[in-house]
Amino acid sequence: MTLAPSILAGDRLALARLLSKIENNLKEGLVSLNELFPHTGRAHLVGVTGAPGTGKSSLVNRLAHYYRHPPQGQTAQTVAIIAVDPSSPFTGGAILGDRVRMQDLAGDSGVFIRSMAARGSLGGLAQATASLVQVFDAAGFEIILIETVGAGQAEVDIARLAHTTLVVEAPGLGDEIQAIKAGILEIADILVVNKADRPGVESTERSLKNMLQFGHPTSRSMRLEGNVDCGEDAATLDASTLWTPIILRTVATQGDGVPELASAISSHYQYLHETGKWEDKERARLQNELDGLLKDVLVTRWRATIPRSKYQDALNKLVARRMSPHQAVADLLDGGSSR
Amino acid sequence: MTLAPSILAGDRLALARLLSKIENNLKEGLVSLNELFPHTGRAHLVGVTGAPGTGKSSLVNRLAHYYRHPPQGQTAQTVAIIAVDPSSPFTGGAILGDRVRMQDLAGDSGVFIRSMAARGSLGGLAQATASLVQVFDAAGFEIILIETVGAGQAEVDIARLAHTTLVVEAPGLGDEIQAIKAGILEIADILVVNKADRPGVESTERSLKNMLQFGHPTSRSMRLEGNVDCGEDAATLDASTLWTPIILRTVATQGDGVPELASAISSHYQYLHETGKWEDKERARLQNELDGLLKDVLVTRWRATIPRSKYQDALNKLVARRMSPHQAVADLLDGGSSR
Repeated sequence: MTLAPSILAGDRLALARLLSKIENNLKEGLVSLNELFPHTGRAHLVGVTGAPGTGKSSLVNRLAHYYRHPPQGQTAQTVAIIAVDPSSPFTGGAILGDRVRMQDLAGDSGVFIRSMAARGSLGGLAQATASLVQVFDAAGFEIILIETVGAGQAEVDIARLAHTTLVVEAPGLGDEIQAIKAGILEIADILVVNKADRPGVESTERSLKNMLQFGHPTSRSMRLEGNVDCGEDAATLDASTLWTPIILRTVATQGDGVPELASAISSHYQYLHETGKWEDKERARLQNELDGLLKDVLVTRWRATIPRSKYQDALNKLVARRMSPHQAVADLLDGGSSR
Repeated sequence: MTLAPSILAGDRLALARLLSKIENNLKEGLVSLNELFPHTGRAHLVGVTGAPGTGKSSLVNRLAHYYRHPPQGQTAQTVAIIAVDPSSPFTGGAILGDRVRMQDLAGDSGVFIRSMAARGSLGGLAQATASLVQVFDAAGFEIILIETVGAGQAEVDIARLAHTTLVVEAPGLGDEIQAIKAGILEIADILVVNKADRPGVESTERSLKNMLQFGHPTSRSMRLEGNVDCGEDAATLDASTLWTPIILRTVATQGDGVPELASAISSHYQYLHETGKWEDKERARLQNELDGLLKDVLVTRWRATIPRSKYQDALNKLVARRMSPHQAVADLLDGGSSR
């Protein structure tokens, strides 16, 4: 028997055990994942990204606390937090340890926090995150906050996993950050100016507004890149159903602006459902995962067909500059191998 | 006739044309690359990475200027700069435009600057960078500075392309950056504390020294992850031939510390050659490129074998939660397809 039935029944220990099995790529983890998958599709996935120093972690903690302790008259929601750290490829454990994050939320079975560091390839990290999301989703967590540390392509890729993407900024973090925004901004559903008690908040907010006018794809068509087949994703957006990104100020350390942020996240959730974009996002996300897995399996299978000496021989010729990389690939795939 | 002979003869216009062809994935670009490849292997590849706001671009410009105008008695070297911006997946052009960078170095045929933005997949970006490096190398550029904007996994992957990796820090960029360092630090051959005229430089330098003692793999074995076969790369490092990372202060805007930095880069170059590590790095780098290309070609070939309707059918079942992602992959690869 797998861990899946216990997880579906709300067993948190079984949940933690499965997460470890998945992170360690154990076969048992895969079997449980397959069993849990039909029970997924209900959670609201919220990505939180932005440059270092913007206070993302504090904001995520505050949000989780708000969902657990909403104002009177509102129902508390269960929250899972996945803190992804793609900048740490060599260290085994995540830098922001689980313990540090737990202080505010300790002892509450309606919150589950998991930190992940990159292991091996980037595809591996995005895939591992997708698997963790599925486990939390099947286990009945209503909000899944996916926090990425850093501000690069890896973060964008992981943010694509989410239904709603928050991009966190802070005043006074240097000019280069302004440039980076242009790329990150385009994935933002909600822009949060955190540390809004600091000087320069007006100018940060103003430059975000300006960049939104230039950079946000509300006036053009969008497609998810890199898919095997994106024919059905390339539909042009209808102007009447466009989401205009919301800009909000917060001071996470004080909790200021957090109710407004939770309300904006909820508005985006409603927007996605009312416009049918929830289904579009689900489809794009699952296609992304499917394509990543396909690549991995194809390479693994090919590896099994080729003798190691043949691979080493091609590499040797490459290092000696007797073949170019493209020529070495052609040699390996077509030049007298068993396939 | 391809562009390769003109490029080998020093034609800068032909060089620019080939770079565009490669960036646009034209077949002609590939043919020229294959012709140029035997002429590569001479350039010193220097990666420059670090968090936003550290002043990497100014530092790279200053370094290039120094190599072009060295102190009397030293020979000027030719320099190519590749500015990689992985944080911008949607915009077509790089954010730091070529023009902005050229001001100091305009009109000098011994310098060539190229900005690149991410197009599609991350593998694509690393591969495109590798191709650009090969063109500059074959064209006779002696130093190739590869600057990455951002501080995540993408930057680490691109830094792996280089023989010598500079990690740039700056005082006062927030606490979270301290955490990120732990991952980035381990790839640093030279640590540059730029903006060293700012308050807090001593504390930044001290924390770097502390982290080096903990984090740098001078006391453990290192291997390049994610390769098809890393048997020959996994050799344990010999303590007598270890490189101890150098920490240097610079003020790029004033040029302070730039001669010392150039000297440290030169020392690392000598170290690599004297210890035989140059060859190890070349081998690991080319293997990395080979593996990336192999994956791409395997997926492209597989796509051609499968009817579009079959792929869409699997995706539909996935979205309906009737199959998990792993089950969909098994279905596509084994379940009644032509393979």
